Amino acid sequence: MKEKIAVVALDVGGTKVACGLILDDGEVLSSRVVPTPQESAETSVALLARLVEESTFAAPKNVIVAGVGAVIPGWVNQRTRTVWAPNLAGWDHVPLHQLLEDKVALPVVLDSDRSGYVKGEAWLGAARGLSDVVFLAVGTGIGAGIMVGGEVVHGREDLAGAVGWLALDPRFKEVYRRMGCFEAEASGQGIAMKGRCLGGAMVGSAQRVIEAAAAGDQRATEILDDVAVYLGMGVANLVSTLNPEIVVLGGGVFHGGTQLLEAVRREFKRWAQPFAAESLRLELSVLGEKAGLFGAARIALDTYGGSHVG
Amino acid sequence: MKEKIAVVALDVGGTKVACGLILDDGEVLSSRVVPTPQESAETSVALLARLVEESTFAAPKNVIVAGVGAVIPGWVNQRTRTVWAPNLAGWDHVPLHQLLEDKVALPVVLDSDRSGYVKGEAWLGAARGLSDVVFLAVGTGIGAGIMVGGEVVHGREDLAGAVGWLALDPRFKEVYRRMGCFEAEASGQGIAMKGRCLGGAMVGSAQRVIEAAAAGDQRATEILDDVAVYLGMGVANLVSTLNPEIVVLGGGVFHGGTQLLEAVRREFKRWAQPFAAESLRLELSVLGEKAGLFGAARIALDTYGGSHVG
Repeated sequence: MKEKIAVVALDVGGTKVACGLILDDGEVLSSRVVPTPQESAETSVALLARLVEESTFAAPKNVIVAGVGAVIPGWVNQRTRTVWAPNLAGWDHVPLHQLLEDKVALPVVLDSDRSGYVKGEAWLGAARGLSDVVFLAVGTGIGAGIMVGGEVVHGREDLAGAVGWLALDPRFKEVYRRMGCFEAEASGQGIAMKGRCLGGAMVGSAQRVIEAAAAGDQRATEILDDVAVYLGMGVANLVSTLNPEIVVLGGGVFHGGTQLLEAVRREFKRWAQPFAAESLRLELSVLGEKAGLFGAARIALDTYGGSHVG
Repeated sequence: MKEKIAVVALDVGGTKVACGLILDDGEVLSSRVVPTPQESAETSVALLARLVEESTFAAPKNVIVAGVGAVIPGWVNQRTRTVWAPNLAGWDHVPLHQLLEDKVALPVVLDSDRSGYVKGEAWLGAARGLSDVVFLAVGTGIGAGIMVGGEVVHGREDLAGAVGWLALDPRFKEVYRRMGCFEAEASGQGIAMKGRCLGGAMVGSAQRVIEAAAAGDQRATEILDDVAVYLGMGVANLVSTLNPEIVVLGGGVFHGGTQLLEAVRREFKRWAQPFAAESLRLELSVLGEKAGLFGAARIALDTYGGSHVG
């Protein structure tokens, strides 16, 4: 019986944790999604360890589990091997790498969720087989996974891709100090703020603003037109700086479908270096919510999958 | 007599061509600066070939000349091996690599001037020994050389670093279509446009605006305050996207000294991701006008210098 290589992938989100046992050809042997513990980092680490154990225990006999890859919505500092995730309860400079390796009998590799997204899409999604790729995630916040020549760009302190901080309007607002200009103007959170008093009623979420615009609400339409300008400027800045082959758009703000995509596509061409814009593919994520999980798998395979190949 | 490795470096500018015979430890054995021919690409190529020949002819007996590195103020397409440089007469998709190798008995490597700047500063300048480096050149135009993990980022079509096109203000102006928002607002050309009617008189250059501000002119000071905001935003965007260890500022606009540097240093911190900003070094170019020449040498050494080592 021919042996196969698999890894355990973990995508830790603010509300859900996804876990999968994934073969090196992308086949998912098993997967689970559970709520993220809201108590402490210890509780979360215990859950992650249990998910890893269950996955490996369920592995078929001819499958070698080579390691664990986990992606985190925050700052994964590869030098100190700590994790800081403001949206996860108690994840304040947690030595997750050590804690997890102490509990599971497998080598662990960690990265940010945005690194996971771009690795996932470049492996099995919209950017399959490409090596100069940007994944722009526009959800509650804004961040980018950046791949240059097939390698994810981490930056000096593993902070690369913090594009929620892109400066896109010289008229500085106080809110930019807390979340960055691009994030304040175009993230789900930003859209919700702008739509707070839509039509006299309180509209608490970006989704409601998007629905109101689809239903013909004038003010909601204006808000989204405005958001599309900032999204176009943000995409343009990534294109002019990096000249990627493709920018993949993901995150909740793009779940509404192709209308916003088309607006961003028109808008970014006004701003970007014309030749770089001309050759760019701008596309929605193919993997959607699974981009992070497949990315975590790819990161683990790249780190630990090779030593078992023979 | 121990043999040494050298390369011929060429820095082709809009008005001047610099040529140097440079050892692999950075020592300059000989150098020349001549005016750039304004007739045609053929005339320029003939001059470059002559400069290479003179350099190699003058090489000491124990020096092996391994190759030629040339940097160009324009688009060096590595796939088609052509060069497009709008500021050089007749350089419209010129097959420079082929033309030059046909004339000189040495292997040739080409790259953009901004690639040269970042390689030069990382070899012998402000970023010596560092591997995550951005060189932001603010002269007549604006461009950036980007180094990630020791490698220059070229992008899919060798257009990376076209940051003159950074979108920094949603209030679109027609001039952005021609030169990009950042370049229109903060380049030497942009400053000259803003200062055109300073104090009732025509002020034709950025240098004159900078001098007027230094002499206390109110309007010139306002223009430069405004420019510093855009420069701060541009630096911030590179920092938040790439998280480099250092951003080196070069080009004519920074020749005035440290006043503009200090303004940009204050400004970029308002906009950039705070942790990435905290750890960043923001410094003026050390090599100045020689950054391109040393960069061209380093590129040639990296490409052809190795095969002679041993």
